[in-house]
Amino acid sequence: MADLEALTQRVLSACADLARMSEEPGRITRTFLSPPMRQVHAYLKGWMERLGMSVWVDPIGNLRGYYPANKPTAPRLLLGSHLDTVPNGGAYDGALGVVLAVAVLEALGGRRLGFGVEVIGFSEEEGVRFGVPFLGSRALVGRADAALLALKDAQGVSVAQAVRDFGLEPEHVREAALQGEVLGYLEFHIEQGPVLESLEYPLGLVEAIVGQSRLEVGFRGKANHAGTTPMHLRRDALAGAAEWIGLVEREAWGEPGLVATVGQIQALPGAGNVIPGEARCSLDVRHALDEVRTRSVAHLVTRAQQVAQRRGLELAWEVKLDQGAVPCDPTLLERLEWAVQDCELPVHRMPSGAGHDAMILAERVPSAMLFLRSPGGLSHHPDERVLPEDVTAALRVGLRWLEILEEHGV
Amino acid sequence: MADLEALTQRVLSACADLARMSEEPGRITRTFLSPPMRQVHAYLKGWMERLGMSVWVDPIGNLRGYYPANKPTAPRLLLGSHLDTVPNGGAYDGALGVVLAVAVLEALGGRRLGFGVEVIGFSEEEGVRFGVPFLGSRALVGRADAALLALKDAQGVSVAQAVRDFGLEPEHVREAALQGEVLGYLEFHIEQGPVLESLEYPLGLVEAIVGQSRLEVGFRGKANHAGTTPMHLRRDALAGAAEWIGLVEREAWGEPGLVATVGQIQALPGAGNVIPGEARCSLDVRHALDEVRTRSVAHLVTRAQQVAQRRGLELAWEVKLDQGAVPCDPTLLERLEWAVQDCELPVHRMPSGAGHDAMILAERVPSAMLFLRSPGGLSHHPDERVLPEDVTAALRVGLRWLEILEEHGV
Repeated sequence: MADLEALTQRVLSACADLARMSEEPGRITRTFLSPPMRQVHAYLKGWMERLGMSVWVDPIGNLRGYYPANKPTAPRLLLGSHLDTVPNGGAYDGALGVVLAVAVLEALGGRRLGFGVEVIGFSEEEGVRFGVPFLGSRALVGRADAALLALKDAQGVSVAQAVRDFGLEPEHVREAALQGEVLGYLEFHIEQGPVLESLEYPLGLVEAIVGQSRLEVGFRGKANHAGTTPMHLRRDALAGAAEWIGLVEREAWGEPGLVATVGQIQALPGAGNVIPGEARCSLDVRHALDEVRTRSVAHLVTRAQQVAQRRGLELAWEVKLDQGAVPCDPTLLERLEWAVQDCELPVHRMPSGAGHDAMILAERVPSAMLFLRSPGGLSHHPDERVLPEDVTAALRVGLRWLEILEEHGV
Repeated sequence: MADLEALTQRVLSACADLARMSEEPGRITRTFLSPPMRQVHAYLKGWMERLGMSVWVDPIGNLRGYYPANKPTAPRLLLGSHLDTVPNGGAYDGALGVVLAVAVLEALGGRRLGFGVEVIGFSEEEGVRFGVPFLGSRALVGRADAALLALKDAQGVSVAQAVRDFGLEPEHVREAALQGEVLGYLEFHIEQGPVLESLEYPLGLVEAIVGQSRLEVGFRGKANHAGTTPMHLRRDALAGAAEWIGLVEREAWGEPGLVATVGQIQALPGAGNVIPGEARCSLDVRHALDEVRTRSVAHLVTRAQQVAQRRGLELAWEVKLDQGAVPCDPTLLERLEWAVQDCELPVHRMPSGAGHDAMILAERVPSAMLFLRSPGGLSHHPDERVLPEDVTAALRVGLRWLEILEEHGV
């Protein structure tokens, strides 16, 4: 048995080392193939090579390391997460999953398994530089097409040019796609939410990545003088929107697992002494079951219509996003549950409320995720943390999971 | 009896003529002592002089015309309104009151009364150019001090300089103040609201200009990921603000004559996929009775505190304005009611929800206002209108009111 305490320290210091490889001094910012990504690759390559792995960077900039099987022809298991960050992000979102994957292989102490293990550090997940997320994992499932390569950043640099500037060959992007027999994909990731902390559980088994609806909802009434227009002669768009925001909240409370959020609001003309003639809101609705989500969205639109009608307002709404839920693979998940039980840790199945590379990988291969508790529920924030004991728990579960896969197959 | 039909047409065409005297072609914009104000003065001066009035421009730029009494020493009655407009305003807000005042004197057909009548076209009421309203009427009540003269517009031009540029002498501004015995002040003005139209009444007797409270109210919770934070672990500042906006509306509905408005709202950070950590609202509360208004404001702050406490939010609020109501003079108002009755028109007493020069004049002299119905409740808008029959009604009431004052005194 490897010294998991020491390995935990190795994981945490690797995350701290990677956090210093940033585009901005004093902040953690690492976007798609920006200069510090080269240091990150060199750092992880060195570590993986010391474990006997062969390492390369694929044509979309994913760092890939192969840990050979104990026989020449064997299927592969994938472990990984992403290496990019949001601007002024934290040290663990993404990077921890890659570092944990390497550390789990180190914990094998040189032992080879009946399958190979490929560690992937995705080049892009956050969607910061090109406004489109999952560039790295899209290429793995064969979805890096000409349109994706033609996307431009704020400086007018295309994905293809950024790839070329990094010393890679965008014309060979199809070679990034998965080939051969792949058993499945597991991603370690911080929860980015407060649920595990509130339950005092170190780890969570992700059953599904939730589906998401985004809408824009607008109420239109009549702008009028706030002093001269009595209450009964008003058509106040903001008062209507406020009533509806209360109904959005109630809908989500009434439906287990549903989250619904109005994050943006605008009242026009927006003067303190003018009754708002128009109010525009965003709506974000998520649930692990698409049926529940679409029913709730329809219900909330009906509610908005009712509020508008009763108040003499006009309603306009537009669906901006309608993305289905992605279930994790039941067999991988079952094996993960056994591993958690074997480590005498509490089993907690939960949805992921945020998108992850696993969502993209699931299109092609059985996929699963293991969440590590996020202290304070912090995410996309420099104070983002992870507890050392949770890292140890994840290492133990990961190691046990590999053993179970070895014993029982996938 | 004067031909009031013809005089009505004279009033409407004068308003149309004045509307063309604008800083902006195709729009009605006339701020403090801007070049078109000179044309306005010349136009009205000519008309007043034809009625035997003596006309001058006082040192704050108010146009003043005196219609002599039938005896050498007599008190004066004031009639008037303001000659400035908001940018892209209407043809009647302000100007109608001055034109009606002159037209009522014309309707006297040369007859002199036991008191003189001074018509005042105030130079500034809207507060557009210097951000402070009532420059003209403040000078009349002796409140044009050095601080007021030092106010600067967006180009850095002071009130004093603007006065000087217009050919007047700001150092003599105290001479604009009222002197001698003044019986009272009456202002004709469009309602700028929908009440008279909804009741199908041509005229309204203003009992009081409402008091006004303005507050800024902020709810602070915790910004979090809209996907990963379940409903029961949220501290959503916007959801709290929305609940409170509903209570603001309910408070106003429950208190006759109260109007309460949230016209501005801001949710931060303001992303569709982030739970708002902060929500800031404006609050505008008005009522003719200060006691009712201050009680309601206190109640609404308590409500906000309760909402915040129940939701684990912090509340901050700041009173930005606390301006008392100004009652109109009961005797002037009673005489005005008699005049309306004598004209066989419906009597409707109402508060003014907006501020007016009469509010300032009331500090020094008995003051009253007569509202003319605003079609569509429109105000500060190029489509602002007035009905010819309502102008006729106002002329009849104005004339009858002068006769009643002549008979009964003030």
